[in-house]
Amino acid sequence: MHFNTVALVGRYQDSGLDAPLRELAATLEKAGCRVLVETDTAINTGVTEYTVASYAEIGGQADLAVIMGGDGTMLGAARMLARAHVPLIGINHGRLGFITDIPLQSAAAALTRVIEGNFNIEERILLEGRVMRGDQVMFSGVALNDVVINRAGRGGMIELGVELDGNLMYNQRADGLIISTPTGSTAYALSANGPILHPQLRTMLLVPVAPQTLSNRPIVIPDSGVLSITITSLSRVESGASVHFDMQTWSECQAGDRIEVRRAQDTIRFVHPSGYSFFSTLRRKLLWNQMPTLSDETE
Amino acid sequence: MHFNTVALVGRYQDSGLDAPLRELAATLEKAGCRVLVETDTAINTGVTEYTVASYAEIGGQADLAVIMGGDGTMLGAARMLARAHVPLIGINHGRLGFITDIPLQSAAAALTRVIEGNFNIEERILLEGRVMRGDQVMFSGVALNDVVINRAGRGGMIELGVELDGNLMYNQRADGLIISTPTGSTAYALSANGPILHPQLRTMLLVPVAPQTLSNRPIVIPDSGVLSITITSLSRVESGASVHFDMQTWSECQAGDRIEVRRAQDTIRFVHPSGYSFFSTLRRKLLWNQMPTLSDETE
Amino acid sequence: MHFNTVALVGRYQDSGLDAPLRELAATLEKAGCRVLVETDTAINTGVTEYTVASYAEIGGQADLAVIMGGDGTMLGAARMLARAHVPLIGINHGRLGFITDIPLQSAAAALTRVIEGNFNIEERILLEGRVMRGDQVMFSGVALNDVVINRAGRGGMIELGVELDGNLMYNQRADGLIISTPTGSTAYALSANGPILHPQLRTMLLVPVAPQTLSNRPIVIPDSGVLSITITSLSRVESGASVHFDMQTWSECQAGDRIEVRRAQDTIRFVHPSGYSFFSTLRRKLLWNQMPTLSDETE
Amino acid sequence: MHFNTVALVGRYQDSGLDAPLRELAATLEKAGCRVLVETDTAINTGVTEYTVASYAEIGGQADLAVIMGGDGTMLGAARMLARAHVPLIGINHGRLGFITDIPLQSAAAALTRVIEGNFNIEERILLEGRVMRGDQVMFSGVALNDVVINRAGRGGMIELGVELDGNLMYNQRADGLIISTPTGSTAYALSANGPILHPQLRTMLLVPVAPQTLSNRPIVIPDSGVLSITITSLSRVESGASVHFDMQTWSECQAGDRIEVRRAQDTIRFVHPSGYSFFSTLRRKLLWNQMPTLSDETE
Repeated sequence: MHFNTVALVGRYQDSGLDAPLRELAATLEKAGCRVLVETDTAINTGVTEYTVASYAEIGGQADLAVIMGGDGTMLGAARMLARAHVPLIGINHGRLGFITDIPLQSAAAALTRVIEGNFNIEERILLEGRVMRGDQVMFSGVALNDVVINRAGRGGMIELGVELDGNLMYNQRADGLIISTPTGSTAYALSANGPILHPQLRTMLLVPVAPQTLSNRPIVIPDSGVLSITITSLSRVESGASVHFDMQTWSECQAGDRIEVRRAQDTIRFVHPSGYSFFSTLRRKLLWNQMPTLSDETE
Repeated sequence: MHFNTVALVGRYQDSGLDAPLRELAATLEKAGCRVLVETDTAINTGVTEYTVASYAEIGGQADLAVIMGGDGTMLGAARMLARAHVPLIGINHGRLGFITDIPLQSAAAALTRVIEGNFNIEERILLEGRVMRGDQVMFSGVALNDVVINRAGRGGMIELGVELDGNLMYNQRADGLIISTPTGSTAYALSANGPILHPQLRTMLLVPVAPQTLSNRPIVIPDSGVLSITITSLSRVESGASVHFDMQTWSECQAGDRIEVRRAQDTIRFVHPSGYSFFSTLRRKLLWNQMPTLSDETE
Repeated sequence: MHFNTVALVGRYQDSGLDAPLRELAATLEKAGCRVLVETDTAINTGVTEYTVASYAEIGGQADLAVIMGGDGTMLGAARMLARAHVPLIGINHGRLGFITDIPLQSAAAALTRVIEGNFNIEERILLEGRVMRGDQVMFSGVALNDVVINRAGRGGMIELGVELDGNLMYNQRADGLIISTPTGSTAYALSANGPILHPQLRTMLLVPVAPQTLSNRPIVIPDSGVLSITITSLSRVESGASVHFDMQTWSECQAGDRIEVRRAQDTIRFVHPSGYSFFSTLRRKLLWNQMPTLSDETE
Repeated sequence: MHFNTVALVGRYQDSGLDAPLRELAATLEKAGCRVLVETDTAINTGVTEYTVASYAEIGGQADLAVIMGGDGTMLGAARMLARAHVPLIGINHGRLGFITDIPLQSAAAALTRVIEGNFNIEERILLEGRVMRGDQVMFSGVALNDVVINRAGRGGMIELGVELDGNLMYNQRADGLIISTPTGSTAYALSANGPILHPQLRTMLLVPVAPQTLSNRPIVIPDSGVLSITITSLSRVESGASVHFDMQTWSECQAGDRIEVRRAQDTIRFVHPSGYSFFSTLRRKLLWNQMPTLSDETE
């Protein structure tokens, strides 16, 4: 794989993004790459001296997209570029950055190494879902992290019936239900006490949020199945129910609506500089399995 | 303790409440009690042949209040009657009824036994809290179950700083934080993975909802302390934060607001027919520690 | 698939196994099958009127093995017959029977339906592992449920270093570590707070038992990797450490020993009568997501 | 409170304990205290130039005992000195030291401040328990952290029936059951997923280890009750069951044995230099609620 044309996408709401953008563009040009800058990114940062390109043009021309921002920026770009199969590499600009794993200050060096061929490719699944009211599609979306169904406020009760390929899994009363990809297992599902899934898995993860039964437990299922979640009851939930595809929200759900979730046809590919370790990221960024020190002599 | 004057309070939104109300009133009169019917209950059910009384009058005159409905009805009545120290007894009318533990069909018999002196009294703490903006009290309330601070929608991030008697407990990013009484430990806090607290304890319980750290864990503290929870950050939470005292909600919280929570001065007393067992209720209603059967020969 | 030759294996320690064994053998003969009875089963139950066959002979000749007992009997037979690829069907004889899912009293009818072709096949992975001391293999085994490494008694501390394909996952101090198949996810790993894995997954699950860090969390990884777990410290563990492959235990582990775990080359196939539902079994046998009833009017 | 006579107790198995012991003894003498050194400590470290005293003599004469070692050393000393009501202060010598919270290198300064009157006293409950076989007491002990009942090995099944003051709490199949004080809530019970209890509480905490039911949950009960735990079944547990009072183990338990646990009559008092914060210790030593940093720019 050769990265001849490289697109730059930034979280353009951030101030001070222009300098690092220009630095990366220069690095890429020096390495012999053609550089595209995503339209909104160019307009908002004023970095207009390179070819400005829409997401559609990036999808048609770029061999690699460099995403600068936080995980939310990455999620958005992944959804925009999944269909075109452009691989992504994430540069962390001032946030936790679990999937945008390259710190800004080492971004130029890391990109140079990647352009030289020192990289690994990780393929990740996305979910696609749609809200059905009878035969009518009310809303649809794609998610790299998770599809979440929940009640908007507190008070009242949402009840869901969950089926996999037509077989009843369970009925559940809870604040909400998270259907997560392996990528999303380290995001909201982790807060709701879900397990960690290796990103290479081809599975979906179901984790309830504040379930009204003691005997709940997260479950991992193959990504080949089709989930159908019916909102069986919304008694006394004043503000109704919402469905979220990553950060895209639709809040008009009614009792009787049915949400279908399945693996999206397209996958997304993440590029990591050689030496990247998922487990190291877990330990370093999520403090996974961090052990108390046995001595505090040195405090 | 003699129950000379007994008040009846019902979940008046329920249809079909008039017949059981009349049956209980007759049972009480037959046992020699003077019967009061709470105003809204009387108006909505049409049971007006007994003395109709406001909550204030019930507080001044009743030796016992019989609450017919679900746990929500009980929570409401408990807050109204705590100041007057009227003991409560709960009759479950068609709901889960964890604290309204007497099934409707055995209510007359149970009440008769209680009037005859076969009962136990359980004293339970309440919490009182107020939302402070600088020196100004923005909202205040009393809770028998819990005080909950959360963000209204999904998206963005609420960050809380929690102090006990001026000492930092922790900073937390989460969907919300539950401060629960022992009574509330079997309600929302249980859904959020909190422990069960025996109702006789004099403690407060803090349980986060979907916390953004792996190293969280619920904590139980003495009820003699004063909690101060500051909303330190509300970045990108579109719909702001809410505070809930049981089911009473205030949704105008801003970053910088401070919520004070402490044990209320008044306690509430629950009356149970002799033989009541908290543990039995846990096993029967919450299916606590229900073991799989070793054999399904008899299926 | 046709089941011409069918072997019967029973938990021969059970008294009263002869009558149901004879009933099933008669059912199978009537359906036109040749019947083998496993040697130890035949000797201990006195059911010697059919062809008595060793596990090796069953492996060579049988098209199906009917296992009568509990899950332990099934685990043992699975290990014995995995190499020969004989499919298994489990009849529950007086135990919980999660994987031996057919109740005894409906066994004849179920077997008849299976012989007639109304069945589904489920393929499940096994783990194989070995304990290495330097270059020397000290012990090895195969497991359908799990490989468990733990300290024998209480007191002291076992510390493990866990690597996947040579990459450090984490170091851990705990009572033990469970490496589970999807099949084992509903056994010991579930007790230790692990997630449920659909049996069709091709994954391994790691769940610590009583870990000495708040920030632990179970993890699911692809079954294509090789796990290497080093016992880095056994300070003050008087009775040493043990390794368990399902129920086979080796208790001579020392600090410095390394346990390698990978997917076994062979898989095992379970036969279920048509209509079998994994989720239904979860709900019925493990009481998964059993919800409190909303009313106890009918108690 | 004046600390005229101060005893020194050390984890005498540690080498290199003599120098810090002598330093603390000198500090205490200089502050005007009479110094006792516990017999085993004196013999094993060779620090014999001060008055050597048995635990009984320390109990009779000391106003304060300084314990140098880890939490295990503190637990042992607490049990020895509880009856005599000697307050304890813990110096951490090369271990995690959750309750021995003063680092060695600041011990002299901390002790000086304490002797000068800058300290707080924390009173903590202990548990006492005994194993009954019919009317016969088979074993008894006292615990500052916890009483643990478990099966020694893996395999088989231990089943417990738990009663509080004669009322059934639950029956449980598990690896074990932890009955913990608030002090013990940050020890083994925490590993088994129990909540944190503030040390000032007057409660007992029950946490199962690897329970064979999904619907378990820890429970906190008043310390005024008497627990009775009957080993109802030990089927196929080869190595029997054990009872542990902190680190003291009795491994001869049989089916039918009954373990009684109640609060001990005596309490133990811990002395902390002014400024000690339980919550700070939780955050610092157990990494409680440690949040991932929002940026790793500075890595």
